[in-house]
Amino acid sequence: MSTDPTTPADVRMRGFARRTTVADARSRLDASVHMLTDETICLFEAAGRVLASNVRCTVDVPGFARSMMDGYAVKAADTSGATGYNRRPLTVVGEVLAGSTCDCRIAAGQAVRIMTGAPLPDGADAVLPVEKTELESDRLFALDEVSPGKHVGRPGEDITAGTTVLNARRVLRPQDIGVLSSIGAGRVTVTRRPRVRIVVTGDELLEAGSTPEGHQIADANGPMLSALVARDGGVPVNPGIVADDRDSILAAMRHDADVVLVSGGSSVGQEDHAPTLLARHGILAVHGIAMRPSSPAGFGMLDGRHVFLLPGNPVSCLCAYDFFAGRAIRALGGRDRAWPYRRVTRPLRRKLVSKVGRVDYARVGLVDDGVEPIAISGASVLSSTTRADGFVVIDGDSEGFPAGAEVSVHLYDS
Amino acid sequence: MSTDPTTPADVRMRGFARRTTVADARSRLDASVHMLTDETICLFEAAGRVLASNVRCTVDVPGFARSMMDGYAVKAADTSGATGYNRRPLTVVGEVLAGSTCDCRIAAGQAVRIMTGAPLPDGADAVLPVEKTELESDRLFALDEVSPGKHVGRPGEDITAGTTVLNARRVLRPQDIGVLSSIGAGRVTVTRRPRVRIVVTGDELLEAGSTPEGHQIADANGPMLSALVARDGGVPVNPGIVADDRDSILAAMRHDADVVLVSGGSSVGQEDHAPTLLARHGILAVHGIAMRPSSPAGFGMLDGRHVFLLPGNPVSCLCAYDFFAGRAIRALGGRDRAWPYRRVTRPLRRKLVSKVGRVDYARVGLVDDGVEPIAISGASVLSSTTRADGFVVIDGDSEGFPAGAEVSVHLYDS
Repeated sequence: MSTDPTTPADVRMRGFARRTTVADARSRLDASVHMLTDETICLFEAAGRVLASNVRCTVDVPGFARSMMDGYAVKAADTSGATGYNRRPLTVVGEVLAGSTCDCRIAAGQAVRIMTGAPLPDGADAVLPVEKTELESDRLFALDEVSPGKHVGRPGEDITAGTTVLNARRVLRPQDIGVLSSIGAGRVTVTRRPRVRIVVTGDELLEAGSTPEGHQIADANGPMLSALVARDGGVPVNPGIVADDRDSILAAMRHDADVVLVSGGSSVGQEDHAPTLLARHGILAVHGIAMRPSSPAGFGMLDGRHVFLLPGNPVSCLCAYDFFAGRAIRALGGRDRAWPYRRVTRPLRRKLVSKVGRVDYARVGLVDDGVEPIAISGASVLSSTTRADGFVVIDGDSEGFPAGAEVSVHLYDS
Repeated sequence: MSTDPTTPADVRMRGFARRTTVADARSRLDASVHMLTDETICLFEAAGRVLASNVRCTVDVPGFARSMMDGYAVKAADTSGATGYNRRPLTVVGEVLAGSTCDCRIAAGQAVRIMTGAPLPDGADAVLPVEKTELESDRLFALDEVSPGKHVGRPGEDITAGTTVLNARRVLRPQDIGVLSSIGAGRVTVTRRPRVRIVVTGDELLEAGSTPEGHQIADANGPMLSALVARDGGVPVNPGIVADDRDSILAAMRHDADVVLVSGGSSVGQEDHAPTLLARHGILAVHGIAMRPSSPAGFGMLDGRHVFLLPGNPVSCLCAYDFFAGRAIRALGGRDRAWPYRRVTRPLRRKLVSKVGRVDYARVGLVDDGVEPIAISGASVLSSTTRADGFVVIDGDSEGFPAGAEVSVHLYDS
């Protein structure tokens, strides 16, 4: 292994020769990530999906003039001047229900009983609501006047034929689904969801959810990454822990997927196979990043797949996912690359210290409307991220912030 | 039907005798909604679910002292004073890998090669990182000193046995899933997701996604409600349009579910069956609400199920769902009753008018950082909600807001 040309011995033994900045790593990542192709799916499965192209409506919605009230279709002129003291008589000549077709035609002085949603009969130009009428045996009286068009939904009132109703890249909301349904779009074309193979390695790991035993710990990263991938619009594929040897890891990295996340063995030690494999069989674009935690993170390409090397320590894994892998998964799926976290600005209750030259991902709590850094002793303390309400990013050119400084917190509850 | 004691003829014919205020309706709703029972599910399905009870950790995580670096397990005292110019010699007596057990024991002047995650051998109290050492054939030299405990993860460092790691009502985040996995919680107990039967009625309706034809329109509410229910943590059940007659609607309202949403026929007309059925066979708690749109909305109980009467007009349907049904579905599932919409405060670009005595749900756009009311002519204009970025609620005691007033916008993109 010491003769492996892709991993010089001094790098393997002495740590990273130099670390890429977060900004450079992101630029390189963004340049390599392109939106996936489309697929056509059923409308009922489309909420939250990303529209692949503009949707144009080819029909008027509604396609006919219809009543917006229960009442009587009338000629507006016949109600002119009507009040409770000056009732105007009308002759009811028929009835039209929603969904039905009306054969009747209204002449002067006539009315047709009409239900909400029913088509307006020929000759009528307004609807007199039922509460503005009195019925005495067969005689109807208007108690109020209506103007032409009153309580009538005109053709194309909701959407006119030819209108672009929704634009490409739209993340479909519930009401968008309703509009698509109303224009007859039973199927919609959306950007494909990236398939993400999760490769968890580490001989010290037991399958997720196992009771920790002896010198082994239960895998936290597999289920955490699965949830993160799903949140970002990907389809996680996580068949369990992969044996910590080169052949097994390489085979897993070649799984049919758009993205491969390798958790564990990402650094430069002799047991860290993934970077070596990626460099030898594909492209190791970035390895070693000036950030804390997760400086041993990296990424590259293998057989057209995006491969991310995530440190095994859970907080590092979360951080490297948040900075790079999640960004790529969102972009592949046509979503906004930016973090999905809501941001609030609040004053720091204590100073937050960093070192110039690296980006810090500092977990913080919100306490009494102030920001409280969460003291942690290591990147393995995943519980720091469950106690945290969010995180503050400290840029590479900053030594941190004094107490009282207003900082921007990315909230985990997005 | 005119002799039906539960729907007096004057109400049926003359509209609502009086309307309940939104605040009263909400109070009555809140008093009747109780969290559902629990269920136990696999950890991999638990993201976004609501924890039913506190989770206590019964083991230390990690359960043993372990190395946080690749390097050498040492007695810290043996590195005292070491620098690149004052190298301290050490004898390597073994190696310990992650997941393995170390039989070796360190005496003064000795070191054991150790990998990240591996258990610290007896006798060692610190880890000297590989980059702080030099190896000359079999002789190891420390180039730096480490203090006791350095680069060692102590037992219970992440979570100490006995700690409550997550509290009941927590909506599980990705990192929470990781923590649950690491404490051996392969299954978790969460609040059951409410099953929500969607009952879409209206003879004018074609199945969702059909091309509108003749005097029929395609159902928009079924797929929209399905998406809303899923967003709020419920499980939508929507087998399609229900025939607009009493027997069919009553049968559909008796579907095995926690919540029934009836879309259409919610008002007081002769074709509006649902309120009459609910009053006769169950409890019609509220019917007619002082709001616009969706004043004909209502709700009650039938055979222990929460039934919501949603107007057929799509915007009214969305509004009634947003004010009442969604609130109940979230609460049944153990979630925050409050709206899931993010709020921003921005100045109005034009006045926004309302009437005292009713709550208004006004769709608005955000333009150049100002709030632009969306002009609409009717509650049927669902496209107004897709053009909108969110909505402003105008309280019942307000006549609206003048141009320039700062208003709170609930953003649809939550």
